Amino acid sequence: MSPRLRHLTTLENLPRETIERLLDRALAVRDACAHGTRKLDLLAGRTVLNLFFEPSTRTRTSFELAARRLGADVVNFDIGFSSANKGEELYDTLHTLEAMHLDAIVVRHKVSGTPDELVRHAMSGVSVINAGDGNRAHPTQGLLDALTIRQHRPDFGKLVVTICGDVKHSRVARSDVHALAALGAREIRLCGPAPLMPDPAEFPHCSFHDDFDEAIAGADVAIMLRLQKERMAATELPDEAAYFRQYGLDNRRLALAARGCLVMHPGPINRGIEIAPEVADGPQSRILEQVGNGVFVRMAVLGEMLTR
Amino acid sequence: MSPRLRHLTTLENLPRETIERLLDRALAVRDACAHGTRKLDLLAGRTVLNLFFEPSTRTRTSFELAARRLGADVVNFDIGFSSANKGEELYDTLHTLEAMHLDAIVVRHKVSGTPDELVRHAMSGVSVINAGDGNRAHPTQGLLDALTIRQHRPDFGKLVVTICGDVKHSRVARSDVHALAALGAREIRLCGPAPLMPDPAEFPHCSFHDDFDEAIAGADVAIMLRLQKERMAATELPDEAAYFRQYGLDNRRLALAARGCLVMHPGPINRGIEIAPEVADGPQSRILEQVGNGVFVRMAVLGEMLTR
Amino acid sequence: MSPRLRHLTTLENLPRETIERLLDRALAVRDACAHGTRKLDLLAGRTVLNLFFEPSTRTRTSFELAARRLGADVVNFDIGFSSANKGEELYDTLHTLEAMHLDAIVVRHKVSGTPDELVRHAMSGVSVINAGDGNRAHPTQGLLDALTIRQHRPDFGKLVVTICGDVKHSRVARSDVHALAALGAREIRLCGPAPLMPDPAEFPHCSFHDDFDEAIAGADVAIMLRLQKERMAATELPDEAAYFRQYGLDNRRLALAARGCLVMHPGPINRGIEIAPEVADGPQSRILEQVGNGVFVRMAVLGEMLTR
Repeated sequence: MSPRLRHLTTLENLPRETIERLLDRALAVRDACAHGTRKLDLLAGRTVLNLFFEPSTRTRTSFELAARRLGADVVNFDIGFSSANKGEELYDTLHTLEAMHLDAIVVRHKVSGTPDELVRHAMSGVSVINAGDGNRAHPTQGLLDALTIRQHRPDFGKLVVTICGDVKHSRVARSDVHALAALGAREIRLCGPAPLMPDPAEFPHCSFHDDFDEAIAGADVAIMLRLQKERMAATELPDEAAYFRQYGLDNRRLALAARGCLVMHPGPINRGIEIAPEVADGPQSRILEQVGNGVFVRMAVLGEMLTR
Repeated sequence: MSPRLRHLTTLENLPRETIERLLDRALAVRDACAHGTRKLDLLAGRTVLNLFFEPSTRTRTSFELAARRLGADVVNFDIGFSSANKGEELYDTLHTLEAMHLDAIVVRHKVSGTPDELVRHAMSGVSVINAGDGNRAHPTQGLLDALTIRQHRPDFGKLVVTICGDVKHSRVARSDVHALAALGAREIRLCGPAPLMPDPAEFPHCSFHDDFDEAIAGADVAIMLRLQKERMAATELPDEAAYFRQYGLDNRRLALAARGCLVMHPGPINRGIEIAPEVADGPQSRILEQVGNGVFVRMAVLGEMLTR
Repeated sequence: MSPRLRHLTTLENLPRETIERLLDRALAVRDACAHGTRKLDLLAGRTVLNLFFEPSTRTRTSFELAARRLGADVVNFDIGFSSANKGEELYDTLHTLEAMHLDAIVVRHKVSGTPDELVRHAMSGVSVINAGDGNRAHPTQGLLDALTIRQHRPDFGKLVVTICGDVKHSRVARSDVHALAALGAREIRLCGPAPLMPDPAEFPHCSFHDDFDEAIAGADVAIMLRLQKERMAATELPDEAAYFRQYGLDNRRLALAARGCLVMHPGPINRGIEIAPEVADGPQSRILEQVGNGVFVRMAVLGEMLTR
């Protein structure tokens, strides 16, 4: 059996076995909740701290609910978002929190690699969970996307996934690709306008496309990405109407995909820019299922890390 | 028996029986707490989310305490107050929260009718509780005011209530009138300067007054309203000294009311503008009793809605 | 036995017996936690409210963890830091919170004496704990510093302590001196640049120094203070490089102290201004131990006050 996770900063290089164990665990939690379980006592007496240097009410709330439903206490450490919080200042914050005897720190930071820096500088047995760092990784999003796909398309060996939009700035895309590749997806297509596409060397498992009609043809899953305007240079910012015409998902394009193609988006949605309202709210949309799975996946991750 | 409440967005059209049941329930909670009960387990494993689009530390804290004292988990969803949050954006937020399996959403929003929009768009079994929407309704305030009055003047058939101040912009006044009318109050008088008085058609149960001396004569209860400057047009803003002379409650005016007239105010108080300090802090003031009853009423409402 | 504390606003004039009892209690909590206790049920059903008029994530989190680990509910009352909150407005906030039946209010305010005003105006059995008021007192910091020293240097009759830096604006220095004097420290030396030194009449137990080399000679403990820029007049603000040369603690100066001299700082640290990195992170630093002891001391204080 692959060793138990102590930290989760990225899905990159995580063994397939570990990813599958986390997904199985999330599914077990989901089943228990479907049968009326409202709260587990697995983490009673443990403390999880949310350390968000970038605001994100949705992800923070999802982690907060996950931890509470396992019986843990949750503390939100409201850092000033304006503060730099890097280098010594960041490590002092970490060590101060460790000295208060926390069990896990859930961290979001706009600088890629910050969670790994915390892991490297941690002095105690605290677990670090990455809730999104720069454009690098958002591992629990990668897991919840994999869980959502597995429920509907369990045979990854046959799976064609198209990821479309601002791939360059997307930590979601990176973590999705890591999960999908580890689970053996047959084909992963990345699609978007040239200024928003990453260096191909970074994505050896993927094919690159600038024509969305071509990229979505026959796909089993379409993952639409949010335009990460806060991470774009001014010259990268696309015209929204033109963007929707070329890279927005509407019913015409969805019809090019495989029958019953799953429509996914990490949220919050920009309707009419990344995705047409009729698709976002249509029968193939799995967007709200993703949100629900987010809580289950985070319960699975916290349970794996913190159960003694 | 009237059906159990699933949502609470307004007291308007709520049957007298339902209102009385909620007040009885609040009284039972109050008695249990007076006899040393600190916490009930009624809602263990349930989650209540505070969704405040307008800041209000007092009301949010009251709901938070109520939910926790019933054993529920509480999550504060800290929405940016600057964001518009209407239309699709609002519904996406709602559906995201529903997908996280919440039991109740306590919502405050500056646009009247927002809680009802949430009810209309809700897709799951989540309960919506209005914690104040625009100038329209603040139903738990209406209930706590009714509870406070009933403790001291149980015979509503004899009751004369004067509501004075910025009636036009007051959701408190509207919910008070709905509760008082349903409970059969004999007379409800509304008083205030012409620019701050509502359309009489909206208040068929009430008499209208611009002379406060006349309006308070013989009253059993005086409910003083807060000047809702944030909802006023520039031309509506009264001169504060003149306002106090004409519509402030001081000891001279209180002496015109019935003996032992209850003095109430939803808080926070503007001393020396709406009410003289000696009255706010005097023996007839029920203002702090209102605050205490607020927690009991909110426990009653949450208990009614969420107990399975 | 000295009477049980009902409020804690300052350590000044607290009997030695009371301080020792609190330190013993903190030590017992620390030992229980070292043996695996994660949570006590001592305060189940009780509510502690954090009322912070000055932002302080670290201290607020420490109190929040302390209260939760005793089984209490914690509510953060997020007051606007811009609001004046004094006089009647402050008392109305207090009375509103009391009416909601809280057990303890943890208050931080930039105006010295505010916690005592709350005590004077409290109408119910609520306990008030000062989490820092202006430059006057920070009693739980004084206790946690005393606890940290006692663990390593239990014989206070032999103890020489040097407190260096912005003594004038430091509530930490004041509470440390009160604790150290009550516990019988042999010698307390205050050191800092003239504009940042207090009136000697305020510190009858202390010697005053402007030469740090002289002040630290033979000291058993060096407590370095944070420059409280937010409380300084423009003319008091020192040049940082010059300040470090004269009053910063580096290894050369530390070598002048007694062997194994404890190095302490209330945090957050300004590295290279108050203290050299090699000292802050060096083997004699007790800074993180102070943070850990902070939670234990706050558990002890809450336990003493709220256990019935």
